[in-house]
Amino acid sequence: MESRFGMTEPDNLPDDLRERVAEIAQKSGFVPNIFRALGHRPAELRAFLDYHEALMERTEGLSKAERELVVVATSAANHCTYCVVAHGAILRIRAKDPYLSDHVGTNPWHAPLDERARAIVDLALALARTPELFGDADVASARAAGLTDDEIWDVGAITALFAASNRLAHLTALQPNHEFFLLGRAGT
Amino acid sequence: MESRFGMTEPDNLPDDLRERVAEIAQKSGFVPNIFRALGHRPAELRAFLDYHEALMERTEGLSKAERELVVVATSAANHCTYCVVAHGAILRIRAKDPYLSDHVGTNPWHAPLDERARAIVDLALALARTPELFGDADVASARAAGLTDDEIWDVGAITALFAASNRLAHLTALQPNHEFFLLGRAGT
Amino acid sequence: MESRFGMTEPDNLPDDLRERVAEIAQKSGFVPNIFRALGHRPAELRAFLDYHEALMERTEGLSKAERELVVVATSAANHCTYCVVAHGAILRIRAKDPYLSDHVGTNPWHAPLDERARAIVDLALALARTPELFGDADVASARAAGLTDDEIWDVGAITALFAASNRLAHLTALQPNHEFFLLGRAGT
Amino acid sequence: MESRFGMTEPDNLPDDLRERVAEIAQKSGFVPNIFRALGHRPAELRAFLDYHEALMERTEGLSKAERELVVVATSAANHCTYCVVAHGAILRIRAKDPYLSDHVGTNPWHAPLDERARAIVDLALALARTPELFGDADVASARAAGLTDDEIWDVGAITALFAASNRLAHLTALQPNHEFFLLGRAGT
Amino acid sequence: MESRFGMTEPDNLPDDLRERVAEIAQKSGFVPNIFRALGHRPAELRAFLDYHEALMERTEGLSKAERELVVVATSAANHCTYCVVAHGAILRIRAKDPYLSDHVGTNPWHAPLDERARAIVDLALALARTPELFGDADVASARAAGLTDDEIWDVGAITALFAASNRLAHLTALQPNHEFFLLGRAGT
Amino acid sequence: MESRFGMTEPDNLPDDLRERVAEIAQKSGFVPNIFRALGHRPAELRAFLDYHEALMERTEGLSKAERELVVVATSAANHCTYCVVAHGAILRIRAKDPYLSDHVGTNPWHAPLDERARAIVDLALALARTPELFGDADVASARAAGLTDDEIWDVGAITALFAASNRLAHLTALQPNHEFFLLGRAGT
Repeated sequence: MESRFGMTEPDNLPDDLRERVAEIAQKSGFVPNIFRALGHRPAELRAFLDYHEALMERTEGLSKAERELVVVATSAANHCTYCVVAHGAILRIRAKDPYLSDHVGTNPWHAPLDERARAIVDLALALARTPELFGDADVASARAAGLTDDEIWDVGAITALFAASNRLAHLTALQPNHEFFLLGRAGT
Repeated sequence: MESRFGMTEPDNLPDDLRERVAEIAQKSGFVPNIFRALGHRPAELRAFLDYHEALMERTEGLSKAERELVVVATSAANHCTYCVVAHGAILRIRAKDPYLSDHVGTNPWHAPLDERARAIVDLALALARTPELFGDADVASARAAGLTDDEIWDVGAITALFAASNRLAHLTALQPNHEFFLLGRAGT
Repeated sequence: MESRFGMTEPDNLPDDLRERVAEIAQKSGFVPNIFRALGHRPAELRAFLDYHEALMERTEGLSKAERELVVVATSAANHCTYCVVAHGAILRIRAKDPYLSDHVGTNPWHAPLDERARAIVDLALALARTPELFGDADVASARAAGLTDDEIWDVGAITALFAASNRLAHLTALQPNHEFFLLGRAGT
Repeated sequence: MESRFGMTEPDNLPDDLRERVAEIAQKSGFVPNIFRALGHRPAELRAFLDYHEALMERTEGLSKAERELVVVATSAANHCTYCVVAHGAILRIRAKDPYLSDHVGTNPWHAPLDERARAIVDLALALARTPELFGDADVASARAAGLTDDEIWDVGAITALFAASNRLAHLTALQPNHEFFLLGRAGT
Repeated sequence: MESRFGMTEPDNLPDDLRERVAEIAQKSGFVPNIFRALGHRPAELRAFLDYHEALMERTEGLSKAERELVVVATSAANHCTYCVVAHGAILRIRAKDPYLSDHVGTNPWHAPLDERARAIVDLALALARTPELFGDADVASARAAGLTDDEIWDVGAITALFAASNRLAHLTALQPNHEFFLLGRAGT
Repeated sequence: MESRFGMTEPDNLPDDLRERVAEIAQKSGFVPNIFRALGHRPAELRAFLDYHEALMERTEGLSKAERELVVVATSAANHCTYCVVAHGAILRIRAKDPYLSDHVGTNPWHAPLDERARAIVDLALALARTPELFGDADVASARAAGLTDDEIWDVGAITALFAASNRLAHLTALQPNHEFFLLGRAGT
């Protein structure tokens, strides 16, 4: 079973959602399971898609690869298999690096990264698991590494969105589509 | 300073958001700071409002008071002052109980609750802090206490949304409006 | 039920304790439940009252408000509803601040505080939950913030006493008197 | 240095305390360092001694050895060297067992104990480190193992007192007297 | 840099080790980095190889795939990138399952497994991170799921060996050979 | 019972192991229980003995006492009674200090140590419990305290070996021989 509470096939979604999911499926070549798992609650799926798009498709601030880096790092800290595997695939593609995702997805705290990427991941991790300890020192470190406040917001907001997304995946025991495991790997 | 990255006054929001925030302000008597803290990113604020509305204003499943109970319990586990104080006020009003929020907001694990409320809070807490340990046993306990799968989804999804919301509040060092501290208290 | 192991009414206490509790009740307007929960063990209650008085009524070192600040911060870290609510009320009154207690009582690690108060709370928190990690660095930070050794002792000793007090409250599932919830709030 | 904030020799204590400490010294053959570390605050030392006596010398409820067992187990969980070494010595003597203290002092969760002693230690440990999770289930387990409510109170109250005592020892970086290390060992 | 303290090429190893490593390299097609990272201490490398062989090549008890399952699960709990990636590759091959390793390597606590595999992984996880809490209940659960004492020993001993191996990899900041990332994946 | 899975007496060991264990027994005056607990798996015992010897009898790098210090500190962090008691005895003898082991064995984080010993223990502790957080900063601190890379390797490798050893002891509920409790104590 790919989701604890059942799956909704795209054909059974309201028109606007069916079209949006179809568009995503066309790009990926398959319908990512998350959309099928959330489909029985169209209003929630719609808001989730909007939030996701607002943060992951934003053209200013962090690069697309950096956004995926935040997702993989924080999803790793939350041991979310769906998000690590699915966004690990996207990170491999966007970073043009077939090894990075397995490093960050296993040990985000010490995966080998350049200084800017390390600052991004450290900031994300500070907020991901013990947000009550997040404070001015974390923001100051990020600024010291050259992140702008706009970029810091991107890191924090993506971390926040995937705190939600990871929990939806854990709630539903969501399984990644098989396609994700191979995307962007060397020689594939 | 009420937010680490500045505040956007409602007048500076796009029309649709200005109207939505105005409507909320009319009901509460003031503009909750969360909307001013998120206002500089209208697309994110819009998605957040939609998600919030989809889950907190839903008429089936959990009662309105039960939804706020999930928010206060998980925000307490995340030590999120804005959410505990703001939603603590709403919980006092919706549950018509001036004491409940301080109990749940201080020790959600053992606040005195009836069996159904305890099952709701236990389920939410299981997902809130160590989501990787969430599993069939947690869902089975909730079902055994009489929660339907629709209600379990509500608990999980609200926990997920406020995992995000709590982190946005920690990211911005968001302060609750003074009005929230007194709303719904005995004799006020 | 306000305490797991029953309550002892003041009239059933030995004379000296009845008088001391009566004096406290006169000041507060009611008998705080902690005294009724401990009353069946007069020798323990007497020692507890003496220890409490020696530390909380001491006129040198920390101010009265600062002493309550230590209590609320460490009781928050221990999720002790009785102590957060009861001493939160006293802190509101002593600090003449209707909002401070809810901030410190929800997130003591990052409640907005001036430098001296922050140093006091940080020192207390360092000792409260993982005392084995408390060391010279914690003391040095406190001294660097201007705390004298006499004040550092006050912080540490109050933290220690409430480590005990919080556990007595958890042992007895002690409920705060309803009066505490409203004391010292704005406009009340 | 045996204590971070200096030591007060018995001769410099108020009369009543000098006599009480002398009496203890006569029994042990030396002045336990805790009394010298607390001596500069006579009111606190007096209350501490009273509380200690009320709980550790009580003749009903737990046996003397069982009381020391609670102290060693919870002090081990708190990694308090002074209390583990000092009360480890007393436990060896009271339990007439030269090995027990090192077992409980290293791994209280799984030291080999008979069923009653295990129930006592489990109850104490449940309250010692994460008191917010202490609840009816812990009390029920203790009762199921045959502990009376009077004995449960003893376990809980001793755990509470040594939560304080351990933190005073950590605050002062208190070192155990050399005599404690050997007391009650086989052949000594 | 593939290892914090330098690499020793097989040609520079003592004869017996050079031959053993050559044999492994012939099977895998490359020299796994762990042998190059440990090579400057031949006595330690020899003992490590012997221990590894004694446990991972043992023909009784657990199957070869089950042995790798224990390695991937506990290395995931220890966030050891080298071991998760390298043994993840072997697990894919031995279990003839291209997806299993990423599931277990991301969330070993709730990766979808059949009952026997779940019992093996649960036993391993109980010993991996908080060994002080490991006890009779864990062994009883494993026996109840049908594991023999010989198999239980295999699980425990492999968990122990990789507690060491994971720490050697963290000590040396060891990077997995690129070949491991692709081995045993679908279609490769 | 001294071990959960039975004991193998030296006479029942293969010749080479019987001789090695006899040699150890001659030095100590008794057969340490660990060898009897591992004896039913000769290949594993042989590798364990080799690894142990390679690291604990090495003549370069750390002194013998410093090696035992690492063992006692990390075994304390892992609450391993067998290793704390057995190696605590050896540490007392090698460091010619009857008190050191009880300090380090109870609170390795703040046992009073000179700067070099503190650096060794801090490095070991950084790797012992949360190895995923071990990184360049830990190595830099050790180097700053004067440790060579060869010594750092010793600390790390001994920590790794006893991560395994501690888990074998927890797996088998191994009890220390009574002789260990008294060895090297003052006046004995």
